[in-house]
Amino acid sequence: MIQQSDEIVFKTSGRALYDITKEVASWVKKQNIQTGLLTLYIPHTSASLLIQENYDPEVLRDLERFFNRLIPQGDPLFRHTTEGSDDMPAHVRSALTATTLSIPVRRGQVSLGTWQGIFIYEHRTAGHVRKILFHLMGE
Amino acid sequence: MIQQSDEIVFKTSGRALYDITKEVASWVKKQNIQTGLLTLYIPHTSASLLIQENYDPEVLRDLERFFNRLIPQGDPLFRHTTEGSDDMPAHVRSALTATTLSIPVRRGQVSLGTWQGIFIYEHRTAGHVRKILFHLMGE
Amino acid sequence: MIQQSDEIVFKTSGRALYDITKEVASWVKKQNIQTGLLTLYIPHTSASLLIQENYDPEVLRDLERFFNRLIPQGDPLFRHTTEGSDDMPAHVRSALTATTLSIPVRRGQVSLGTWQGIFIYEHRTAGHVRKILFHLMGE
Repeated sequence: MIQQSDEIVFKTSGRALYDITKEVASWVKKQNIQTGLLTLYIPHTSASLLIQENYDPEVLRDLERFFNRLIPQGDPLFRHTTEGSDDMPAHVRSALTATTLSIPVRRGQVSLGTWQGIFIYEHRTAGHVRKILFHLMGE
Repeated sequence: MIQQSDEIVFKTSGRALYDITKEVASWVKKQNIQTGLLTLYIPHTSASLLIQENYDPEVLRDLERFFNRLIPQGDPLFRHTTEGSDDMPAHVRSALTATTLSIPVRRGQVSLGTWQGIFIYEHRTAGHVRKILFHLMGE
Repeated sequence: MIQQSDEIVFKTSGRALYDITKEVASWVKKQNIQTGLLTLYIPHTSASLLIQENYDPEVLRDLERFFNRLIPQGDPLFRHTTEGSDDMPAHVRSALTATTLSIPVRRGQVSLGTWQGIFIYEHRTAGHVRKILFHLMGE
């Protein structure tokens, strides 16, 4: 049993889902581990990780419409507003989605379902530099 | 340290929570690992995994009522409707719940709390065949 | 590769977020594992685990205001009310947040982002004793 650890930086350009499946799949292939467990971790509190449908881009836009209606920007409920009206909604979105994802690796590949992609969900309206930690354990 | 990897198929009969605790507990016991980490992964985007109260079935029905009100079928907000009016709500429910669960194993058993069960949450109105990936690492 | 397993008990005093970052960080340091994966698991169905902003306490209060509005106590939707009007909302909050968190360990430390803290989110109005399971694997 061995482990590999890494971090990869992604640039976002504002509130949306960013498909990082290719980058993750290609990193896993390079580690030469046939069976194991991959964990992705996002060390931020206003962006999150999500497994979602990777086929119809309308799904991602519908998802964003839903979160935007559920947690409206400028909601008078929120008092933490010094960093902008999109900041507190970003923290709530992060609480409702995932900060960490663990996915089995089999035959040297990350075991996603046919219609699954791995996404960074950027919750701030401005673009940000987002770091993802990779951890893979197996043999 | 060793690892075991498997996949088990479950049949659902429409939108509801399905208790898979027994199947998970019995699989773990068979692996002969005393201390370790179990990870369950669902390779689908319209069903999810959930740890919930396993005692009063009304909890599960209340949970379903809540999600049904929060993400109404036929909501004009959603444009991804070609696969049916229950499809986009299913993706949103998946985003709000878990795709992956990691649970410590101790004394050869999955360490659930007294009132915890492991459930597949089927979000589509029709029944589906749902695959769960199992990964256990330990000694 | 080795693993360490433990459980630590925390007392809460009612519905709020409780910062356990220091306790987690200090436990990890003691294990003498340089690189690995830490998993925290909460064996309860009316409290959850959350990674959130650790700087402005108003963020935590805003988060609580949001969940309180989203899942109102005494909602006539809920039929599971025998354990109190805060019980079913607690189960829904648990479903919407995390029961388990996996965080990479690097250089002997849990790899949290600069503004990230680890919190127990107590969802019941009364104080409770909450157990957290710790599992660390690495070398």
